[in-house]
Amino acid sequence: MEQRVIDTLRRVFELNGFIGIETRAVEQGSSLLKKGETSKEIYLLSRLQEVGHESDTPIEDRLGLHFDLTVPLSRYVVEHSGALAFPFKRWQIQKVWRGERPQEGRFREFVQADIDVVGNGDLPAHYEVEVPLVMVSALEELRTFGLPKATVHANNRKLSEGFYRGLGLSDIEGVLREIDKLDKVGADEVARLLVETCGANVAQARACLALAELTAANGAELAERFDALCESQGISRDSDAYTLAREGLDTLAMIVDEAAKIRPGSVIADLKIARGLDYYTGSVYETFLDGADSLGSICSGGRYDNLATQGSKRYPGVGLSIGLSRLVSYMLHTAGAHASRVSPAVVLVAVWNEADRAQSNAIANALRVRGIAADVAPKAAKLGKQIKYADRLGIPYVWFPAQAAQGDEENGETAGDEVRDIMSGEQQSADIKSWEPDTVYARQTVSLKA
Amino acid sequence: MEQRVIDTLRRVFELNGFIGIETRAVEQGSSLLKKGETSKEIYLLSRLQEVGHESDTPIEDRLGLHFDLTVPLSRYVVEHSGALAFPFKRWQIQKVWRGERPQEGRFREFVQADIDVVGNGDLPAHYEVEVPLVMVSALEELRTFGLPKATVHANNRKLSEGFYRGLGLSDIEGVLREIDKLDKVGADEVARLLVETCGANVAQARACLALAELTAANGAELAERFDALCESQGISRDSDAYTLAREGLDTLAMIVDEAAKIRPGSVIADLKIARGLDYYTGSVYETFLDGADSLGSICSGGRYDNLATQGSKRYPGVGLSIGLSRLVSYMLHTAGAHASRVSPAVVLVAVWNEADRAQSNAIANALRVRGIAADVAPKAAKLGKQIKYADRLGIPYVWFPAQAAQGDEENGETAGDEVRDIMSGEQQSADIKSWEPDTVYARQTVSLKA
Repeated sequence: MEQRVIDTLRRVFELNGFIGIETRAVEQGSSLLKKGETSKEIYLLSRLQEVGHESDTPIEDRLGLHFDLTVPLSRYVVEHSGALAFPFKRWQIQKVWRGERPQEGRFREFVQADIDVVGNGDLPAHYEVEVPLVMVSALEELRTFGLPKATVHANNRKLSEGFYRGLGLSDIEGVLREIDKLDKVGADEVARLLVETCGANVAQARACLALAELTAANGAELAERFDALCESQGISRDSDAYTLAREGLDTLAMIVDEAAKIRPGSVIADLKIARGLDYYTGSVYETFLDGADSLGSICSGGRYDNLATQGSKRYPGVGLSIGLSRLVSYMLHTAGAHASRVSPAVVLVAVWNEADRAQSNAIANALRVRGIAADVAPKAAKLGKQIKYADRLGIPYVWFPAQAAQGDEENGETAGDEVRDIMSGEQQSADIKSWEPDTVYARQTVSLKA
Repeated sequence: MEQRVIDTLRRVFELNGFIGIETRAVEQGSSLLKKGETSKEIYLLSRLQEVGHESDTPIEDRLGLHFDLTVPLSRYVVEHSGALAFPFKRWQIQKVWRGERPQEGRFREFVQADIDVVGNGDLPAHYEVEVPLVMVSALEELRTFGLPKATVHANNRKLSEGFYRGLGLSDIEGVLREIDKLDKVGADEVARLLVETCGANVAQARACLALAELTAANGAELAERFDALCESQGISRDSDAYTLAREGLDTLAMIVDEAAKIRPGSVIADLKIARGLDYYTGSVYETFLDGADSLGSICSGGRYDNLATQGSKRYPGVGLSIGLSRLVSYMLHTAGAHASRVSPAVVLVAVWNEADRAQSNAIANALRVRGIAADVAPKAAKLGKQIKYADRLGIPYVWFPAQAAQGDEENGETAGDEVRDIMSGEQQSADIKSWEPDTVYARQTVSLKA
């Protein structure tokens, strides 16, 4: 299941010209701590031989497991900047690790699927609409597995920051943090928190909420309503704050309008999207599934003008990241997708007796050459036992090799092979050169997971 | 490159009914140490918050990264024994980690590709020939990437042990360890080591070498020559030692003869294969590539009757493991395979000016719908710059959208698109509905690696 989802995403990313990279699971402590993520549960490594002396090495010089795919991308870009063609479009699907308290008995290992476009010095704004559109088209492909429709909600940091500054607020991070709670705790509580923790007065708090709740059908309407809100709050069009906000607004309006042309309804403006992480500098995105409010955002990201730096060089980036393990778990448990088959084999070739195993092997090999996954019964057990084995593995067909009848052998004919559909019990004669399984069965291949 | 190799192996494994599993990267210290691999460089984990207190937890209770895929398989089988259908055939392709001294500045992370068949209580001997044959057919598929022909060399632990015991030797592990050095240090040195470290006299040492050098064209000849060797060494056919050796010999003869029928020359008897690891209890395998002696064995394994135990239950297994990172590195650097393309895109759609970007995007999307991976130029730069960008990414074609000519637009025609083959410089008119890239270019998709 997860493997099929990964294959699908990869195909879409590559169709769009994204380059696959794989980085080592381990980064230097200094890189892992750079984002200031000391609150994160990072796993550090120590060699068996070092036990008891781990603390001799400062954390910065130790190795740790990456907790996202952005830290490795940042290192990768700097390390290979000479060899890369910029803008560098990359996809990366790998495990990441985040620790939990050991008493909870759990080790948290997830798969993330990221796409980013990284520029050298500058990065054209059109990627801020193209990257979410690629992600949406990838999620669209997952609807065949039962995933509901996904919508990217976009906002812009500059828009929010400019507006808050225009109101006279200075704790921008704080305001973003509280606005981020809007869906969870409601408007009244957020207003209270803005007053209590961010130094806002009641009017400022209400204005922040008014911005968060502003909606529009298109870019022009968005600009119009935003300008009206600024006017009502006395934010002058000549102010630096308005200029900053307007820069963000123009990008957001462009994103909404361009996306509407290509894939209507896929990317919408949502001015309450805040994204707590302080490295975003422009567009921010969260992605929601129809009818899955409790799941929250399944795919987030944004633009960060300082993904990496190297001396005076700056590498801005824009990207989105899917929490894939969580999404697959949702698809399996809630969205109706199911892991119906265990074995990839479509057919189990029965073995009448061990002396005839070679005949069964030959049949299986002939089917494999034709691309039909086949297994051979482990033992020449009673037929019922062989069928039960296939059934437990979810193999839909059992193949019965022709039993040698003196006459047939002399004629050199191989007639007599039969195939049983386990579900229906139907049994028909079949030819290894032409038999085809029902395509629905044949397509299902499922991996166990642990 | 590595991704394509993985895809190929996976396809062959699944065609043969092997079930893909993926296990977490982390296992309990107690599991990791079970094989007695304290000499291995195992990486233990500690949470950032635990730094300085790591040693409060005994190693057995700590977590560590798996150093192979056998330890996780063993745990997996015990944990899921109630839900699995046995014999359980599984493939697993994942990273494993082995530490190196940090002063060497390297962190060793490899990909391994394993297949195993695990029985519950018993495991039929026919898997001892089927498993190496599946591996050989998978390696055979890699010949399209330039891999030379692979041959599995098989031996049997019981055969060696019975013979050594028949000679009167008791340090079986020691003898196997020295015999394993035969290709590296030569017969005289091994004879000297057998006398010096394993308590053998000169005649016994020579007999061990005679066994290692015994070859045969088929199972019957193997048995005949082995019996002659036993007779010359005074090993009685009534002895327990001969009975043990003969049990191993019969399995080995079966393997060689069965393999010869299905895939001649793919699996041969090689009585000097020793495999140092003490958990093998029957067949042992190593795999060599034609003309790549210095590379050594690229794929090893064997039968181990105690892969896992659970109370009085025993789970015997037989499996082989490819060191994939090492193999891919060999293929890239020595065997002539090359990563010729960087971007998966086959075509870069040029952009005449930013106002026309939507037109270029539409062309790219139309190609993608037809399965043709397409990228769009990052900027409406000078044409030479756009072509250079494609060239640096290894994208073989550049698409020039028709430049709007008043007349054409009024006719509603889209004629005028052209495609340039970067290598030849040839430029031709092309239609997004029917254009196809040269299939050789289209098939090459390559991943960067770090």
